[in-house]
Amino acid sequence: MSKLFMFEKPLGMRDTLPELFELKRKLRNAIGLEVTRWGYEQIATPTLEFYETVGQSSAILDQQLFKLLDQEGNTLVLRPDMTAPIARIAASTLRSGQRPLRLTYDAPVFRAQQREGGRPAEFEQIGCELIGDGSSSADAEIIALMAASMKEAGLSGYQVAIGHIGFVNALLSEVLGNEERTAVFRRYLYEKNYVGFRKAVNDLPLSGIDKQRLTGLLKLKGTSDVLSEADTLVSSPEGKAALKELRDLVGILEQYGLNNQITLDLNLVMHMSYYTGVVFEAYSQGLGSPVGSGGRYDSLLDQFEHPEPATGFGLRLDRLTEALGTKTPQVSQDLCIVYSANRRIEALDTAVKERGNGRRVVMQDVAGVKDVDAFTEGFQDVVYVIGSQGNGGAR
Amino acid sequence: MSKLFMFEKPLGMRDTLPELFELKRKLRNAIGLEVTRWGYEQIATPTLEFYETVGQSSAILDQQLFKLLDQEGNTLVLRPDMTAPIARIAASTLRSGQRPLRLTYDAPVFRAQQREGGRPAEFEQIGCELIGDGSSSADAEIIALMAASMKEAGLSGYQVAIGHIGFVNALLSEVLGNEERTAVFRRYLYEKNYVGFRKAVNDLPLSGIDKQRLTGLLKLKGTSDVLSEADTLVSSPEGKAALKELRDLVGILEQYGLNNQITLDLNLVMHMSYYTGVVFEAYSQGLGSPVGSGGRYDSLLDQFEHPEPATGFGLRLDRLTEALGTKTPQVSQDLCIVYSANRRIEALDTAVKERGNGRRVVMQDVAGVKDVDAFTEGFQDVVYVIGSQGNGGAR
Repeated sequence: MSKLFMFEKPLGMRDTLPELFELKRKLRNAIGLEVTRWGYEQIATPTLEFYETVGQSSAILDQQLFKLLDQEGNTLVLRPDMTAPIARIAASTLRSGQRPLRLTYDAPVFRAQQREGGRPAEFEQIGCELIGDGSSSADAEIIALMAASMKEAGLSGYQVAIGHIGFVNALLSEVLGNEERTAVFRRYLYEKNYVGFRKAVNDLPLSGIDKQRLTGLLKLKGTSDVLSEADTLVSSPEGKAALKELRDLVGILEQYGLNNQITLDLNLVMHMSYYTGVVFEAYSQGLGSPVGSGGRYDSLLDQFEHPEPATGFGLRLDRLTEALGTKTPQVSQDLCIVYSANRRIEALDTAVKERGNGRRVVMQDVAGVKDVDAFTEGFQDVVYVIGSQGNGGAR
Repeated sequence: MSKLFMFEKPLGMRDTLPELFELKRKLRNAIGLEVTRWGYEQIATPTLEFYETVGQSSAILDQQLFKLLDQEGNTLVLRPDMTAPIARIAASTLRSGQRPLRLTYDAPVFRAQQREGGRPAEFEQIGCELIGDGSSSADAEIIALMAASMKEAGLSGYQVAIGHIGFVNALLSEVLGNEERTAVFRRYLYEKNYVGFRKAVNDLPLSGIDKQRLTGLLKLKGTSDVLSEADTLVSSPEGKAALKELRDLVGILEQYGLNNQITLDLNLVMHMSYYTGVVFEAYSQGLGSPVGSGGRYDSLLDQFEHPEPATGFGLRLDRLTEALGTKTPQVSQDLCIVYSANRRIEALDTAVKERGNGRRVVMQDVAGVKDVDAFTEGFQDVVYVIGSQGNGGAR
């Protein structure tokens, strides 16, 4: 290891300077207000959790976890997502509380990066979880709330791609039989490696019809028309049930007025292995990575010994700010009062009054600044309260 | 290690449930607004920093640091305070920016606990740093801003105890000579172990006058009168200069109208070893631990190869909420619309309208809830939009 410079930061760690902070703050407030209006209650969980409990439930790859040991030899992790900690709370402290339970959070999550690639190892996620309601209404509410949040954030061109992991699993297992083979094909879909998928299909000793069923899956993207096509590919009750759920969901989302914001993507497979039903990703114009994602996770609560259905979404604040990048607000530095010690009281009075009017007021003792001209450059207004009483108020 | 229950959390880690979250949110916003009005700009730094740089500069005891290894073998720490990371930024990214520099933050910091004792290992700190201004005006601004923040937070009875580490060091080294002995006595003061301090004074081979000078230090608490007493105990230029700074500071704070909120405490020694001048602690009525603290740290920036004077404060959000404990707000759950699928559009229209009026509106599909009576209990108003068109709107 080479000697570190004093100002270096660990891989994937970033500072947020005032302009970006201001943009994030506005997004945070706008989204926080919207999810609160929908009756979601805010909670926070600790940064560190046990690896054995929340760490393993979170379904993040082991090499992406930041791990450390506590003094009793337990392995701790920096929370890699917020869904597992919220499941922990829902199954313990809030076990006997109101159901359905509507919770929201706004917190950094942590995923270790293997090498320099510009990917953050810490990023802020704002999300909602709807626990204890297994209906399509709940799936629709979560997707509609994610859409409303993006709209409140000021995102104009966004799309939500919707799939169903139950459908993918049903089709794959109808054709492939065993879970081992199914997992291989699910992985291709997760990596969006369609070339690899097609090649693997060709290499299998399957009938032409079954090969077409598998490659047909890749075409199931677009409007709700793909649901009828999908219907011809599966025959199991699980597959049919998944398609019915999607049809119901699309119908409800149309009632929410989201016709133009949604597309179906029946080969969508998410990295979170705990999803069991409807899954979705939100994309913004001109941004390659999803700004948000989520889905139904009806088995995660089982792991906390309190089985109940649940669904939720998470939005990535870093990607939202990237999508809104050009609109970075100027941090306004309204007024600077430069004063000398003998007229401090006058300066103070002005500051109190102007702050009361909602202005941002910096008070600066002239003795504490080396270059007054450079210092006052960034301000809209500058007032000098210096020297003998008579000549104050110069600008 | 015994088997963990699924819902356990690591030592000192806590969840924040909706009611407490709401109280914290209000404090956070009130303080954030006030410090912004004073021209402080918000920044954020990463949760993880290098041990070798920020970790060692932070002056937190090694056993209190949460440490982990990254993949290149560097030791990382969960930031134990915010002053060192901000010094890193001031000395790098903002090195050539405006001076004096006024920055504010609101972030969790981490200190490992040795055993169960109810002390949090993660707590949120809101603070301000004023960098590049060595004047007493800067010290006063920081203390006055901390006081204004506590006032905005709704704290009525608070006191700020002010000392000067330069005075303590001057007196101790005038009497004791070497740094080793000085450190022992400084430790007694830090621990507020006055019995130990007196005993150690008695055990030393010193003249009666010198012993009186040391024990005299313990009496230097109260109004600004203690400054004249203090003046009789030191003769070195360092000691005299420290007292002059305190006199100037008290004069300015009186101009801020803080006469009744400040007391002097000349044996105040803080755990942060980087303090070099004025130090202070803020107390709230009925709370044993300080809600805030801070001071001047003119040498910390040296460690980042960019020497410049600086001062700052940090408030602990957990202790502020404890001090305000009785005022926990009720999280208002305004309106619940229970609907059936065939009348969803009607329910949606009402929800959109009421949310537009600023109400918190939960929409609940009756098919998604097991016990409607229990579910609707917590709401101010409940509207049922169920069944055939005619009988809606029942309450």
